[in-house]
Amino acid sequence: MKAIIFDLDGTLVDTVHCHVIAWQRAFCEFGLSVDAANIHRRIGMSGSLLMQQCAREIGAVPSSDEMAGMDASHQSLFDLLTPEPRPLNGAKELIALLHGDKAPCGIATSGERPAIDSSLACLGLPADMIVVDSGDAKEAKPEPDLFLECRRRLGVAVAECLIVGDSVWDVLAARRAGFLAVGLLCGGTSEDDLYRAGAFRVYGGPGQLQSALGELGFK
Amino acid sequence: MKAIIFDLDGTLVDTVHCHVIAWQRAFCEFGLSVDAANIHRRIGMSGSLLMQQCAREIGAVPSSDEMAGMDASHQSLFDLLTPEPRPLNGAKELIALLHGDKAPCGIATSGERPAIDSSLACLGLPADMIVVDSGDAKEAKPEPDLFLECRRRLGVAVAECLIVGDSVWDVLAARRAGFLAVGLLCGGTSEDDLYRAGAFRVYGGPGQLQSALGELGFK
Repeated sequence: MKAIIFDLDGTLVDTVHCHVIAWQRAFCEFGLSVDAANIHRRIGMSGSLLMQQCAREIGAVPSSDEMAGMDASHQSLFDLLTPEPRPLNGAKELIALLHGDKAPCGIATSGERPAIDSSLACLGLPADMIVVDSGDAKEAKPEPDLFLECRRRLGVAVAECLIVGDSVWDVLAARRAGFLAVGLLCGGTSEDDLYRAGAFRVYGGPGQLQSALGELGFK
Repeated sequence: MKAIIFDLDGTLVDTVHCHVIAWQRAFCEFGLSVDAANIHRRIGMSGSLLMQQCAREIGAVPSSDEMAGMDASHQSLFDLLTPEPRPLNGAKELIALLHGDKAPCGIATSGERPAIDSSLACLGLPADMIVVDSGDAKEAKPEPDLFLECRRRLGVAVAECLIVGDSVWDVLAARRAGFLAVGLLCGGTSEDDLYRAGAFRVYGGPGQLQSALGELGFK
């Protein structure tokens, strides 16, 4: 193993719960009443897929104008709720260790700049950190495009690159492109759901992953 | 089966995510940095136990004054975030059906009045609904005291009364007193975690539970 690609929300920054509430309120503005837990388990997939799937579950079919409105509303509600995202415990230390000399790493997220800027800023990333967002690929997760683009920029082979994410969609996207994926519990997805999606290993969060790097093929 | 006792947060009202954020920010005010997912999996236990366990996990031992401050801060932050709680989909219909003629029911929550008043109000409960809060018993969940007090007020035997909750702590508290417990996924706890805690059956939410009442011994 030579490199690691991280998901962002729920994997490095503790933003999942605020995203859930922001989506729920955005849906409500458009007359859709969706339980928070049903939104939570879809965090990590592309925004448009999340909206479609949540709406479908309650028998609604939003128009593309309504989807654009919900998307914008989600973003402004999220910014209101989370002016300063917090890094997950151990995330900054793990990135610093890896980037220092352990292994090249990158971030591949279904989010998009400038919406993710505050999350990236709170991590204090090195200036040359590779960050691939949904604007950099044709399709976001659970399609594998973002991970493949990040891998390309890192200049490593699929087999040399570990994916780390907190959601089922990270693990599915990784597997569809042949990557091994490590799941983290810190986004609120259960161990069973991550293993059933095909996770190679599951750890509590970035700190526990750091302790386990040797087990995963990083010297 | 003659009666049902419901948990409140995450079982009838969609408040878990806001409680998580309110607790996280309250902890932060007292210098404790706790990941949201680690708070989420403790929602449903008594507030003091939740604080102790979250603090212990990061090696902190808050004083009783600090605990009182965090508790108050959590409550005011929750009220700010959630001025109008929303019922979980299907919750009002289920309560109306049961209370109409199907089975007597009550609510037993680790929360306390007046903090829970807005959640109770949004459900449009019948005036004679039995609601047992943490002020009505010596210990909150995962101790079984609240369920036992609610059962006493309902006037039924433990074996005639089903507990319905969304958290591991509901299921553990029920089992400690010999009740059967049904788990609901709508608070964000996984099916596996609920079954491993000893749930008799697990359903998605109040609506799915309503469809399954016949399977559970309610005519």
